[in-house]
Amino acid sequence: MIPPPGAHMPGERALVQALRDLLYSGTPAQTASEIPFGDDMAQICAQPMLLATVDTVMDGVDFDTRIHPWQLIGRKALAVNLSDCAAMAVRPVAALCSVALPRDLPPGSFLDLHRGIADLGHEFGCAIVGGDTNSWTHPAVISITVFATPWDDVSPVRRNGARPGDLLWVSGPLGGSILGRHLTFEPRVTLAAELARYLHPTAMMDISDGLAIDLGRLLEASGCGAELVATELDCALHADAHTLAAQDHRTPREHALHDGEDFELLLALPPTADSDSCRALGLLPIGRCVTGKGIQLIEHDGRATPVAEMGWEHFR
Amino acid sequence: MIPPPGAHMPGERALVQALRDLLYSGTPAQTASEIPFGDDMAQICAQPMLLATVDTVMDGVDFDTRIHPWQLIGRKALAVNLSDCAAMAVRPVAALCSVALPRDLPPGSFLDLHRGIADLGHEFGCAIVGGDTNSWTHPAVISITVFATPWDDVSPVRRNGARPGDLLWVSGPLGGSILGRHLTFEPRVTLAAELARYLHPTAMMDISDGLAIDLGRLLEASGCGAELVATELDCALHADAHTLAAQDHRTPREHALHDGEDFELLLALPPTADSDSCRALGLLPIGRCVTGKGIQLIEHDGRATPVAEMGWEHFR
Repeated sequence: MIPPPGAHMPGERALVQALRDLLYSGTPAQTASEIPFGDDMAQICAQPMLLATVDTVMDGVDFDTRIHPWQLIGRKALAVNLSDCAAMAVRPVAALCSVALPRDLPPGSFLDLHRGIADLGHEFGCAIVGGDTNSWTHPAVISITVFATPWDDVSPVRRNGARPGDLLWVSGPLGGSILGRHLTFEPRVTLAAELARYLHPTAMMDISDGLAIDLGRLLEASGCGAELVATELDCALHADAHTLAAQDHRTPREHALHDGEDFELLLALPPTADSDSCRALGLLPIGRCVTGKGIQLIEHDGRATPVAEMGWEHFR
Repeated sequence: MIPPPGAHMPGERALVQALRDLLYSGTPAQTASEIPFGDDMAQICAQPMLLATVDTVMDGVDFDTRIHPWQLIGRKALAVNLSDCAAMAVRPVAALCSVALPRDLPPGSFLDLHRGIADLGHEFGCAIVGGDTNSWTHPAVISITVFATPWDDVSPVRRNGARPGDLLWVSGPLGGSILGRHLTFEPRVTLAAELARYLHPTAMMDISDGLAIDLGRLLEASGCGAELVATELDCALHADAHTLAAQDHRTPREHALHDGEDFELLLALPPTADSDSCRALGLLPIGRCVTGKGIQLIEHDGRATPVAEMGWEHFR
């Protein structure tokens, strides 16, 4: 019983029923579960190893309900979690979705939001198995937990194994995602599995807060430093970084280094990794790991300048 | 590096480091995990069957940051999830905690919040294994996901197995929790395991939105109706229900039937269950399941009045 467009919110109980219809009509998902949608807890089918991640996105920070369609908002709320699955090269299997939504939200928007989540989940084999539906008088908050399990013959890739000499690569061009890609990006789940299986990264993560700050995290966990090669970085600038640079007082490079929400993979590969295979998979080289700490940018003339590990940081 | 009281928020990165210190200093939790706190995803140790639940609590709805201490707010944010574990008679094992907090929150409050979560988690063997830390300019939202696994020799108890003739019990007196118990209640995790092991409930859930509405959900899932016995219900009124009734125009019974956040267990037991054992475990009888639909209240003179399945419902 999905409420008609323009209707008033029919109360949580009816909404949960509508969600059950939306999520489980005609899909075979979760039929293996003994405990169906709607009980006190959701069952996650037994796995040899289970991983979990949670991300919360908020109106006015991660999306803007005045201009973004609810379906894309829902898509993003799940996509940022799927990007965490890509970051570790694991297979998403199920999600819990918990929302705090404005009390006066039209039911159509409520359903569009969940449709955006469910459709992307379906694409990645990640069923929505439960959640929590709340209303209040403040802007929308969407919190999604995703469960994942290792792919066959692939161990999860952590961020702590990079060693001096390893080469640094990214899965696509960077910067300026605020122009739209932050809502529509494709989580690199499939690519990550291929990378892990064939190229054996020593460390990997997704770039969610910005290349410089996220690379800083990878280096800190790995106990080494990095040199970014300017000529390589300049080939890894997204067209959006150039567009945005033309509008503000920053350079395309600064956008690539410090803009958040690229949601591309950042990985370290042993120097022996076949660079043709890397390029065939769409990877772009950006530099190398070195002994020491911190990040240096090496200009084409050999001059080295330190890169501030700045990016998107909450409470800043 | 925990920031001193009165300090400004030191940025997400330092806060996450402070959380790691808070959650993992001196506790053996999660030492079995190959992937420690702080990577893209948290590892949940492999279990034969894993269940998960999520609850989001919001400032101004579930707590009030103007009057409630942050430690109690954190405690409640986890406790409502542990109550879901009790509802299914399963053992909590790990939690993910995701927060959206006011940007100007003092670091001491941030840590008190997480201390409240961690301390209660420690009490129940439920380690905080990861999460997400966000700031914004609106009131606090705390979303916790809890993972649970069956106790030895106990299957999770669902809400759909009650049959006509089964007797209905609650784990404690009801009503008026807004006077304080909604923040300080003890999740019935241990009791639920004992109940499931020795008394074999046909259906069980926690009373989070109010006896009438939650019993309605249990009955709907089970396909039967219920008669509440007024003389029994009157023995299951909490002192807070009486106190609150003296302050407003509602009766203690109405508070017991319709107030949210009792977080006691509601269960159906076969009529053959030993009532002395039930009482020894602190259970209070409230009525019985019958054929048909809906809830009737049977007065001492035999008169039956329908009970509205009203309680706390979001979007109402």
